[in-house]
Formats: sequence, C-alpha cells, structure tokens
Amino acid sequence: MNFLDVDDLTTGELAAVLDRAAAIKADYRDSGASDLLEGQTLGMIFEKPSTRTRVSFETGMTQLGGHAVFLGPDDIGLHGREPVKDIARALGRYVDFVMARVYDHADVVELGEYAEVPVINALTDDAHPCQTLADLLTIREHFDEDVSVAWVGDGNNVCQSFVLGAAMSGLDLTVATPEGYGVDDGVLKRAEGLGTAPATTTDPEAAIAGADVVYTDVWVSMGQEDERAEKLEAFEGFGITPERLGDRKLMHCLPAHRGEEVTDAVIERDDAIVWDQAENRLHAQKGLLAWLAEQE
Amino acid sequence: MNFLDVDDLTTGELAAVLDRAAAIKADYRDSGASDLLEGQTLGMIFEKPSTRTRVSFETGMTQLGGHAVFLGPDDIGLHGREPVKDIARALGRYVDFVMARVYDHADVVELGEYAEVPVINALTDDAHPCQTLADLLTIREHFDEDVSVAWVGDGNNVCQSFVLGAAMSGLDLTVATPEGYGVDDGVLKRAEGLGTAPATTTDPEAAIAGADVVYTDVWVSMGQEDERAEKLEAFEGFGITPERLGDRKLMHCLPAHRGEEVTDAVIERDDAIVWDQAENRLHAQKGLLAWLAEQE
Amino acid sequence: MNFLDVDDLTTGELAAVLDRAAAIKADYRDSGASDLLEGQTLGMIFEKPSTRTRVSFETGMTQLGGHAVFLGPDDIGLHGREPVKDIARALGRYVDFVMARVYDHADVVELGEYAEVPVINALTDDAHPCQTLADLLTIREHFDEDVSVAWVGDGNNVCQSFVLGAAMSGLDLTVATPEGYGVDDGVLKRAEGLGTAPATTTDPEAAIAGADVVYTDVWVSMGQEDERAEKLEAFEGFGITPERLGDRKLMHCLPAHRGEEVTDAVIERDDAIVWDQAENRLHAQKGLLAWLAEQE
Repeated sequence: MNFLDVDDLTTGELAAVLDRAAAIKADYRDSGASDLLEGQTLGMIFEKPSTRTRVSFETGMTQLGGHAVFLGPDDIGLHGREPVKDIARALGRYVDFVMARVYDHADVVELGEYAEVPVINALTDDAHPCQTLADLLTIREHFDEDVSVAWVGDGNNVCQSFVLGAAMSGLDLTVATPEGYGVDDGVLKRAEGLGTAPATTTDPEAAIAGADVVYTDVWVSMGQEDERAEKLEAFEGFGITPERLGDRKLMHCLPAHRGEEVTDAVIERDDAIVWDQAENRLHAQKGLLAWLAEQE
Repeated sequence: MNFLDVDDLTTGELAAVLDRAAAIKADYRDSGASDLLEGQTLGMIFEKPSTRTRVSFETGMTQLGGHAVFLGPDDIGLHGREPVKDIARALGRYVDFVMARVYDHADVVELGEYAEVPVINALTDDAHPCQTLADLLTIREHFDEDVSVAWVGDGNNVCQSFVLGAAMSGLDLTVATPEGYGVDDGVLKRAEGLGTAPATTTDPEAAIAGADVVYTDVWVSMGQEDERAEKLEAFEGFGITPERLGDRKLMHCLPAHRGEEVTDAVIERDDAIVWDQAENRLHAQKGLLAWLAEQE
Repeated sequence: MNFLDVDDLTTGELAAVLDRAAAIKADYRDSGASDLLEGQTLGMIFEKPSTRTRVSFETGMTQLGGHAVFLGPDDIGLHGREPVKDIARALGRYVDFVMARVYDHADVVELGEYAEVPVINALTDDAHPCQTLADLLTIREHFDEDVSVAWVGDGNNVCQSFVLGAAMSGLDLTVATPEGYGVDDGVLKRAEGLGTAPATTTDPEAAIAGADVVYTDVWVSMGQEDERAEKLEAFEGFGITPERLGDRKLMHCLPAHRGEEVTDAVIERDDAIVWDQAENRLHAQKGLLAWLAEQE
C-alpha cells in the first residue's frame, strides 16, 4: 500500500494513522526509542533538499529501531541513468519503504506502481500528504473538534493535501487565495466526494474573520524564483501581520519568508505553534510508517 | 584481509562466502535483522555515485546491526587534500571495514595496504568482485551445476571479475566481445591458474547458441561518454533481443541501456532474473562482511 | 548545555569529560558497542566537508547505540532559505544533539541560543574544542603530567582552543607563531583567567628546544587558498623536519601538507602519534556526548 496523497487512506484509516502517531509520540516521551521497525530501512529519494523532511524521517526511523538511506540529487537521478521503473524495482528489493520528494507527481505514482514496498510521497508539485498528517495532529492537540481554519495564501501542494485531509476529518476550512492561485478543481471535487469541499474566497480578511487558526505558507517556493516578482504582486494583501492575526493561532509549514506571507513578529510570538507543527512531522511520519508496516 | 578482487579468496573461501551469503539470506527471510555486526561501521568511499552499491551496502549493514557512513566525492577526495595512505590510516582508526568505489584500481590497493581494517573493492576500472559474488549466488539459485554461461558484450571490469569467479567455481563460460574489447590477458592467465580460462570468441551468436544463460552489461559506462559513438559502432551486432535470447535467461548487472545492449522487451520479460540478481548484491555483501569479520 | 569552546566547561568538568572519554575508550575495546544513547540522534551541520570530523562523530553515535544525520552544504544552508534561529528551533525538535562545523563562530552561538538541545562546536574560524579534547586525551596517554608542549605554526582556531585547554589542564605550553599570526589577545586573556596563558614567541627553535612534544597544523586551511603565497612566505622557517624534531613526538590534527609545515619523513616516522591523536577524536567526542546527555 502506498501513501501518495491523503485520500489514499479511507477516513477510518486516516484516523487510525493519527491515533497511532499520537500514541507513538506519547510512548517516545515516556520510554524513548522502540524496536518496532528494527533492522528495517527507508530509502529516501530527494530531487530537492529539505531539512525538515530529511531530518524528521531519518530521526523517525532511528527512533523506531531502523535506518534511513539518504539519496540526494547527486546519488540518484530519476530521469538520468535509468527509468523510474527500474529504480523502483531495484530499490524495492533492498529497502522496506521508499520515500520520495520530487517535482513531478507522476514519478511517485510510477515508483508506487513498480516498487514491491510501500512508497510515501514526501512532497510533489501537487501534494504534501505527510505535512497534512502533521497538521491534523497539531490541530487535534491544540484545538477542539469545532475549530475553524483559514488557509490564506497560495493554493499550492501543501494546501491541496490539507484540503483533502480537512474534508476527511470534518474540519471547517475556508481557503483564501488570490484569483488564479486557487486549489485545483479536481482536488475540490475529491474533497467534496470525501466529505465537504472548503469554502473558497479571494478575500483574506473575510476568511480570517471567522477563523480560530490561520494557516499560511511561502508564496514563492524553491525552484519558482523566476516567478517571484509576479507572485509578490498577486499576493499583495495576503500577508499575515500581528494585527490581522489577533489572538488566533498561526500555522505555517516552514521555512517562513519574513516580510512576505508573515512578519517576523507573527513567527516570533511566544504562543506560536509553528514549532509544535514542525515537530509533529516526526511523530506523524512515525505513525504512518508503523501503520504501513502492518498493512497487507 | 582485503577483498580487492575475487581471487583474493581461495576457491574454498569463495565457496564459504557464498554459503554464508545464502544462509544469511535465508535467516533474514525467516527472522529479520541480526546483531552480527552490532555497533560496527562500514566506511564507504564513492568517487562515482551508484544507487545499487550504496543502498545494498548501507541496508546490509543495518540488517546486520551496524551502520554505513557514506562518503561521496564532495565529502572525501582521494586525490585532493591528502594522500590515499593518510585517508586509509585515519579511516582505519574509526571504522571496522572500508568499501571503495573508485576509478583507479591502484587506489583500492593502497587503501588496503594502509588501512588497519578490511578493504572491499566495490568497483574499480579493472574489477567488480562484489558483483561477481551476487552473480554466482544468483546462478546457484536459478541453475544446475552444469549450466553454461555466455558473456556477450564488453570485456569490462564486471566481466573480468566474473571470469575469475567462474574459473574458481568451475563454471562453463564463453566470453564474446568485439575485437579489441576482450578481457585483459593477465586476467585470462589468472583464470587459467585458478581453474579454467573461459572460451573466447568475437561471434556473439556462437556464444549464445551453446548457453543456458546470457550475461550482458552496458557498453558505455559512466565517464566514458566521449567514447560513445566509437563503442556503439564496435558493438553493433552484440545487442540482445528476445529472438536471440530465446528461452535462455538474461543476467545484467544494471542499469540497462535499452536500445543498446538489450531491448526493452528483454528486460521486461516476466521470467527476468535481473531483479533477483540485483537483490543478491545485498545478500552476497552481507555474507562477505560477516565472513571478513571472522577472519585474521 | 552547549560546548562551543573548551572554557564552556569548568576545569572540573573538562577533567570529567576526559575521564569519561578514557573510560568509554577502554569499555569499547573490552566489550564493543554500548546502548548509552540508544535511539538518539545527532544532527550534523557541515558548511565545509571534513572526513575525520564526519566519520568520528557518525561512528561514535553508532557505537553508543544512536545515529548521526549528515547535513552538508547542499542539504542545509545556514544563510540561505531561512535564518539560523529557525533552523535551530526546528532541528532542536527532532534531534538530541546538534553538531556544527561552520565558518562564523557567531553561527554556533546562535544555534546554541535557539536550539532546545546541546550544540557542539566541531570547528569554527575561531575555535576547535573537540580537537582539544582529543589532544588532551592523547597527551594523557603518551606523556607524564609535567610534559612541555610547543605549538609551532599558525595561531589558528585549533591553536586557540588548545591554548584554553592547556590553561585549564595546567599544561606547560609555548606558542611559536610568525609575527602577525599569533593567538588572539582575547583568547590569551581567557587562558590567563583559567590558569596560565602560554608563553609566546616568534622563534620556533626556542619553543622546540624546551619541548617534549611539538604540535603543528597546516598553514593554509581550506578556503584560504588565496592567501597561500603570502602565508607560505610568512611561515618560512616554521616547518618541522626530522632533524628539528629530534626524539620529540609530533602532534598534528591532520590533514598534513607535506613540504609545508612538515616533511614526509616526520609524518611517516614509526613512532608517530598522529594516528592515535586522530583516533582520539572518536573517543573524546563519545565522552563528550555521553557527558552532555547526563547534564541538566
């Protein structure tokens, strides 16, 4: 079984993964490392670097008694020496799980098709379901069930997977994006099929007004630097300031670009939950790995 | 004791390493990871990248309870900041084994001379003995003792170590290469001294006709791209097609260059053993590491 | 508690860390790996590569039952995508220790301020306290308490931390550097406050004459290649030859530049202790990690 986007899981399975993550987090605090995945290996394919993804997965495998092999752009080329399907078949003979952080979503689909082991999407241009697991775990920990969330910013991969996860979790979500930067229609349809599509708007003030927590993300991702000027113009008025945030909580999947989607004061607030959210990548992914190891 | 080429082992030792590999493979399937090399470290020096070598050694160390340190071209320079002999002596004070994948065979010889721990050749321009261990393990698993093998293609490092391993295992081998691309005379002499030198020919059809299994490899290796046009011309007629292969099995140490030494249809055949062969890198190297740890 | 320079420890704590290192070294020789840091992770930030630092820390964590995550210049940018304080806070949520090898000493100070876990300085432009731990351990093993040490060469980061460690250990030290390449005045003042500042001179012969052991280091470090010609001129007469060394021992933190600060014959002497000194990086750092894990 693969985890290429949140809705590869059923609603019940998503809840089970989150329960597992919460239990593993509590266990680790109580009694340290476990031997749940003793001697097992996670192969990690990175087409682009990422501190948080890299360290949270590698540390997670260690805490579960296993090991993660880091394969960066210089170590493995998905479109270089050999086709993706050959990489998938060879890797799948060595490792117990494959994690991939790549540009083209079709690549994780092909990895998943050919590898004999579970493939985990750790970011593609379309989806970031591991982030959504961490987000939902953080929301569980910090808010009641009837919390209202406003996504304010780009309808990007992080947003798209969160829209699916919110629909599956019955979360009240409003997505505010500039015209032309909204969530993909197909994703909205999938969300509707799974529960409820989010409310959408191009007015950030309106979205924030009704929310308990505001979730934003960088406007210009790695590799999009050439679109910078254009995007900064389109996103004018979407930045989160302390005044606008009020006593709402801020979520952010980091890194933060101060002076763009947030001000320094917003990130540096004493009651910030962004570090808890970052930490939950570790626990959420451990829950996912442990759960995947028990399937099939 | 070092493992710089297959004939660093006696015939009896080669059989012992393969027996060990087969036993470790069976044990792993039955009961998972062991603690045979608990807390031990393999230092891996890579002058050129390799997915299979990297992942099979790193996963193998994890499955044996140890760890592998990956040192890529940016991490260590064999001909950069300090001489090979100094790298060997310092590394040998930290790690329990050194594995090197380098261009110049003389470098693994020098590493082996100066490091206080076993040095394993994981590919040089002259030899690829770890691949030969995997090949011999694969042949044991898929064929009877009187199997006939045809190597068809370049008399390269993979071929040269295989020639030695075949001689030591009493394997019936014919090597078909284009004129000027044959196995080094010195290697043929060593093979003769070890048992039997292979039959050699420049006629691929003749070699294939008498064979149960056909082994080929890329014609143009990494770093030889400037010789590409010349080699493609020299190797015309040496490609393996489904018609030519018939019901023989194909071996290939991968990556495969479809449209050159093989067609896509040959690699994609349902009865392909190339993935088993790739997987056996893991088991063969675990057998080697476990065996080396018991020597001296 | 952080370890950014030797005098972050009290004199008693420095002795405790060295005792711990010696005990761990003996234990490892007797009974192999331990589970002292089982399931724990060391995050390693490298702005510049280093074989010895990398392998000694990574192997050390394995021998203590934990794991080290290697983050090279391509994996993490201290002055790239996000501010040092954000990297520190996120990393500190995943790993149990952070080790950093960076240019600007202010960066390890900022990492130490913001990470919730101990931060270890594994080389900055100003200090190299882990090397000093290894040096002091090596001196304990090879010499009596009243040994006299001459540092001959550049008053660089390695020298500066050694000056502090020598002062805290009551070691008789003379530092001979060319005019203009002496130890920073602030470091000499700190040394005086801690015990005794070393004697300083610009005459290498005088320093060596009264010494039992001569410690030198490269004149031109990585990244200083543009100052090469100037430095080679300034350091003329500071090289160590067999004649000059006599029956004194040589210490060198490696890599060695033969023909500059040392001749080949000096490094290759049968009674060289430079490899013991290199090995002690491993044991000293294991002692430090084990000791840090028990603080607070």
